[in-house]
Amino acid sequence: MSRADNRAADELRPVRITRNWLDHAEGSVLVEFGRTRVLCAASLTEGVPRWLKGQGTGWATAEYAMLPRATNTRSPRESVKGKIGGRTHEISRLIGRSLRAVVDTKALGENTLQLDCDVLQADGGTRTAAITGAYVAMADALTTGRERGWIAKRAQPLRDSVAAVSVGIIDGTPVLDLPYEEDSRAETDMNVVMTGSGAFVEVQGTAEGAPFDRAELDTLLDLAAGGCRDLAQLQAAALAETADTAPAGR
Amino acid sequence: MSRADNRAADELRPVRITRNWLDHAEGSVLVEFGRTRVLCAASLTEGVPRWLKGQGTGWATAEYAMLPRATNTRSPRESVKGKIGGRTHEISRLIGRSLRAVVDTKALGENTLQLDCDVLQADGGTRTAAITGAYVAMADALTTGRERGWIAKRAQPLRDSVAAVSVGIIDGTPVLDLPYEEDSRAETDMNVVMTGSGAFVEVQGTAEGAPFDRAELDTLLDLAAGGCRDLAQLQAAALAETADTAPAGR
Amino acid sequence: MSRADNRAADELRPVRITRNWLDHAEGSVLVEFGRTRVLCAASLTEGVPRWLKGQGTGWATAEYAMLPRATNTRSPRESVKGKIGGRTHEISRLIGRSLRAVVDTKALGENTLQLDCDVLQADGGTRTAAITGAYVAMADALTTGRERGWIAKRAQPLRDSVAAVSVGIIDGTPVLDLPYEEDSRAETDMNVVMTGSGAFVEVQGTAEGAPFDRAELDTLLDLAAGGCRDLAQLQAAALAETADTAPAGR
Amino acid sequence: MSRADNRAADELRPVRITRNWLDHAEGSVLVEFGRTRVLCAASLTEGVPRWLKGQGTGWATAEYAMLPRATNTRSPRESVKGKIGGRTHEISRLIGRSLRAVVDTKALGENTLQLDCDVLQADGGTRTAAITGAYVAMADALTTGRERGWIAKRAQPLRDSVAAVSVGIIDGTPVLDLPYEEDSRAETDMNVVMTGSGAFVEVQGTAEGAPFDRAELDTLLDLAAGGCRDLAQLQAAALAETADTAPAGR
Amino acid sequence: MSRADNRAADELRPVRITRNWLDHAEGSVLVEFGRTRVLCAASLTEGVPRWLKGQGTGWATAEYAMLPRATNTRSPRESVKGKIGGRTHEISRLIGRSLRAVVDTKALGENTLQLDCDVLQADGGTRTAAITGAYVAMADALTTGRERGWIAKRAQPLRDSVAAVSVGIIDGTPVLDLPYEEDSRAETDMNVVMTGSGAFVEVQGTAEGAPFDRAELDTLLDLAAGGCRDLAQLQAAALAETADTAPAGR
Amino acid sequence: MSRADNRAADELRPVRITRNWLDHAEGSVLVEFGRTRVLCAASLTEGVPRWLKGQGTGWATAEYAMLPRATNTRSPRESVKGKIGGRTHEISRLIGRSLRAVVDTKALGENTLQLDCDVLQADGGTRTAAITGAYVAMADALTTGRERGWIAKRAQPLRDSVAAVSVGIIDGTPVLDLPYEEDSRAETDMNVVMTGSGAFVEVQGTAEGAPFDRAELDTLLDLAAGGCRDLAQLQAAALAETADTAPAGR
Repeated sequence: MSRADNRAADELRPVRITRNWLDHAEGSVLVEFGRTRVLCAASLTEGVPRWLKGQGTGWATAEYAMLPRATNTRSPRESVKGKIGGRTHEISRLIGRSLRAVVDTKALGENTLQLDCDVLQADGGTRTAAITGAYVAMADALTTGRERGWIAKRAQPLRDSVAAVSVGIIDGTPVLDLPYEEDSRAETDMNVVMTGSGAFVEVQGTAEGAPFDRAELDTLLDLAAGGCRDLAQLQAAALAETADTAPAGR
Repeated sequence: MSRADNRAADELRPVRITRNWLDHAEGSVLVEFGRTRVLCAASLTEGVPRWLKGQGTGWATAEYAMLPRATNTRSPRESVKGKIGGRTHEISRLIGRSLRAVVDTKALGENTLQLDCDVLQADGGTRTAAITGAYVAMADALTTGRERGWIAKRAQPLRDSVAAVSVGIIDGTPVLDLPYEEDSRAETDMNVVMTGSGAFVEVQGTAEGAPFDRAELDTLLDLAAGGCRDLAQLQAAALAETADTAPAGR
Repeated sequence: MSRADNRAADELRPVRITRNWLDHAEGSVLVEFGRTRVLCAASLTEGVPRWLKGQGTGWATAEYAMLPRATNTRSPRESVKGKIGGRTHEISRLIGRSLRAVVDTKALGENTLQLDCDVLQADGGTRTAAITGAYVAMADALTTGRERGWIAKRAQPLRDSVAAVSVGIIDGTPVLDLPYEEDSRAETDMNVVMTGSGAFVEVQGTAEGAPFDRAELDTLLDLAAGGCRDLAQLQAAALAETADTAPAGR
Repeated sequence: MSRADNRAADELRPVRITRNWLDHAEGSVLVEFGRTRVLCAASLTEGVPRWLKGQGTGWATAEYAMLPRATNTRSPRESVKGKIGGRTHEISRLIGRSLRAVVDTKALGENTLQLDCDVLQADGGTRTAAITGAYVAMADALTTGRERGWIAKRAQPLRDSVAAVSVGIIDGTPVLDLPYEEDSRAETDMNVVMTGSGAFVEVQGTAEGAPFDRAELDTLLDLAAGGCRDLAQLQAAALAETADTAPAGR
Repeated sequence: MSRADNRAADELRPVRITRNWLDHAEGSVLVEFGRTRVLCAASLTEGVPRWLKGQGTGWATAEYAMLPRATNTRSPRESVKGKIGGRTHEISRLIGRSLRAVVDTKALGENTLQLDCDVLQADGGTRTAAITGAYVAMADALTTGRERGWIAKRAQPLRDSVAAVSVGIIDGTPVLDLPYEEDSRAETDMNVVMTGSGAFVEVQGTAEGAPFDRAELDTLLDLAAGGCRDLAQLQAAALAETADTAPAGR
Repeated sequence: MSRADNRAADELRPVRITRNWLDHAEGSVLVEFGRTRVLCAASLTEGVPRWLKGQGTGWATAEYAMLPRATNTRSPRESVKGKIGGRTHEISRLIGRSLRAVVDTKALGENTLQLDCDVLQADGGTRTAAITGAYVAMADALTTGRERGWIAKRAQPLRDSVAAVSVGIIDGTPVLDLPYEEDSRAETDMNVVMTGSGAFVEVQGTAEGAPFDRAELDTLLDLAAGGCRDLAQLQAAALAETADTAPAGR
């Protein structure tokens, strides 16, 4: 199988991580996996929801949504329909769990991290791009929190980095980071979330067509591990840029 | 680690599959995994949703819900709150995908299968019990459909059976089929859906505490494969009982 | 008129009251009026809603709902529709009022009783079965409350028992306890709620076809009074069984 | 017991029925039972809901609502809350059933009657005033329908008139047509809907305090029958006024 | 252009302001602009919403709604649809802003004014009639508030009066106070809210057909200013009537 | 009064109009008024809503929304709240009316234009930026429609261009194009929508503090006319760039 964009089976699409894309948010990233474009805004506020008060721990949560014309044909707004669909709920929860896996809520203190991942343009892998970008926005927000004195100087609220990638089997070939056109043809579709140190946070594999066997599963996990490793390096590189050299908010 | 009910790490809880628990539904099962008790009703109706008409294929879908006092403390009804929560959405979608993985919609013809999985009592593993029971209810509904002449005599709408089980790591030990008490302590929680012939339909693993490594993942997959094998046999045994010997609807 | 199940006009369908059908609830009953099957869960919790605090009185309320495939053809879920229908509201309110008629809220103390009546299978008379079963579940929950020390040892929160039955006129003949097939043909339909000592709590009569005259109304009230008397005895008998002899939770 | 307004126990409050209070509606009535004031608008349109088409029968339905400041303290709007309460549902359904009891839907032809009963001011008995006024508005709308040629010249869509009144027991005394102040003190509260020819359409009795016995029930039914007889005469008198002598729409 | 009711281009429709139309509300007005009829109820309560507490200032807000049969053909209820439409929201906000423009919230003290404007019959200009009537109802509610001692004796919570009128261009002619028939034909439609002393509170002009030029805009503003001046006098006259001479609540 | 960014009173903020920011939409623009950043996507589809079919005219409509972290502090999502707020409704309607004012729906043919204006970052003037950007996106979508043969070659669906700007009075000085900081201090706030040929489409002025007089209104209108003239030139310049020279998507 040769890919429409001539990528190797284990190659990511071009990834861009633009920090500080917004002026107001404590941290923000415009993340691009090829034509998929997700705006990740990290809001850090003092205090926690009522049910957590007085326990000395913080809270991190996430919401995912898609603009109506992010997709090839327009989708109606969930606000207009008056209810949130199952897919939106599912992805919001996945992003939240993935981020919490690397947050030390004790070290965060009684502060709340709210990640908003809004898909401006969708071309497959929106949830994995969202997790990957949200981690960087979150890291920036925590830096802001330390500067503002909300988080203790020596506290290390991040235990590790976290990134995510999709893998799938198309015409029998396992491939990494599927755009929409590949995703819609894949027999098996898997999203894998891993820490920077190479451990699994989430593994979600679904047989879209024929069920898959253990050997296929193993190959997909290998492929995903490689992709997450590459993404972890890109995240680290993005965060290494100093405030001066970082791309200005558009 | 010894388990509260003295089970071996790779042992299922007592499983009961009571067919025809309802009088009206085309197929129905009360499935029990220990104290978890799910009522699965399979409704088969002629015709398909508008967007599928005239294509000669059927449709299968599922809805999951929990009675307010299924749990240890009462939860408010989603109908009263006026919206369905993310967890409910997520599980309904999982059940639907799992069942569709073994349904040949061409062979089903233009008929619709609607599976309702209502948790009467919850003690961990409600989604896996639901999938396991729903398969049997679906098989019975398809038999009814054939008797009523909605489905062709020789059509084989079921390509395989499907069952599901949870696995997790508690205090470092991988265990099968977790009741609530274990589930709430597990570091890693995984739900695995497999066909009767041993292929994977869904793999959903989540690090609740520490991320997990590849070796742990492999052990959990082995454990789950064994559990699904046992469940497939219990499903087959339940379906082998003739109408005469089958437990009457309560 | 002869009835499909050969019952006498003033005869109840077979009634079964299975206590402790659930493991978690403070009181629970699976009540059956023929093929109508309602699961009644009584949740007793310490404390009262904010607007009642500090007045030394408790609160009792009820919610009624029907599983989608309780009926002959599947009904959409109210949680999915996002709103509760008028019929559900009306019956929930009726059950709540009926139970409160026999509860001494002063003796209950600042505790809340929440009755959930979920129809697992519907064949007419679901609201009357719900009231009849909910009373028994409530009685068990109050015993639990006394054992836990939430309710004073000598307090008598129940002033009386309460039960309900439907009556109707079919082809000119007044009959007791109508299954769905009769209910849908009845010219007049009445639900009567009475205390164990024979007083009326609710009388709700509706002319479905022709309006009814006073003589017909009188006959229906007599019939209902007899049915409620029988139900009160069945309730008392069910509650008389000791914990040891009571049917174990399924 | 002497009543605040010196009425006899079996005496109605001053009743006013003002026809044609609105300019647009096919029929409209401002009905007053003392200080209770309900605007009843009858909309008649050609055609029926989809599920009734081609059967040659019409449809009649009703909606009840209360303005936020109809009551002594302001109630939030149901449109703002986004859901309709149980009480509103219950009363809307009662009004609809009551009107349908006197409508011959065959004679109505494939036309739809929609009754809107909006409480402008509430002082007890809003549902009974609504039924009483809605009947007159409906009669006027049917006349309009005949004039417009939607209803056949000789068709008699009304089989009878219908009116409703409340009765209750206060301090042991049965009384007719309770204003709010009495209603809130009543031990037993009953709403009775009757045809002009004296048959029962609905009987809804509720023990608010102590349950009531058969003798009390009988007394209340007698009282209600007298009240409905008086209301039927007032309805007939209002409808007897010619278009010329009828009060102009305000 | 000659108008259907022979009014001059700068002439208001007959305006009636009936105070105390309701018995419960602190202030209430039935306002009529021709056949447009709006019931304005002013509820004054002690206390303010939580976010305003302790600042010594009051709050005024408004809600607008239309009865389903206020219009020529029946509109579905927003409570039944479960959501409030954009038009309703927009007008409610306009009324609230208009009233707040003349309220001195410091002088009001920590009290809340809630204006409910319900359109009983619509014939164009419902929002302008609502503002005009609501001002008078509000003035009465403030008098009630002073009598009850909620508002200080010498406090002057009203800085000015406020009234509103519509203007538009029909067939090239600018006209004042458009009924529905004119409104639906107007090329330009403008609503103007002014204080009694002649200053602008709101100017909302919309080109329905062709855009309008500055000269047209100027003419419309002149026309509106005249109309608001007339309305201010009618408001003052209505408020000048003593309690004795004021029309009794219907 | 000197402005924080040293602008003259009649000077716009830096305006950027980036065409084709999205790959899927028929037309799309990222429009910036200073730090206000709105993504405008124009979806053109064949066909019209049912109620317009067969009349040979098209339809144009708009939806406005704000990302949760567009603002200085995070706002909850309307999709999560389950209802759309009044402000959102109001602005969506304003944008729709403004665009329809320059669209010749006959020339558009039976096609539908849906404009989505999503505020990515808010700093005052989001509705005016949305209208200004949406016009350009709409123009591009119409070109696409002509290329695809949906719109007749010679049809001129656009009668004129349209742009909008805010004006206000701060500390007595009328100023153009207010950022949030100025907007929140303004006594009077006005949004003006004008065609490229200088006619008014909408004028919406609101007294936030003191009511304003005619002279102030005149000055504000002059200021707005100048701003809209400048914006019309910027729109024309943006549209004049050829596909080759136009900034690529991002």
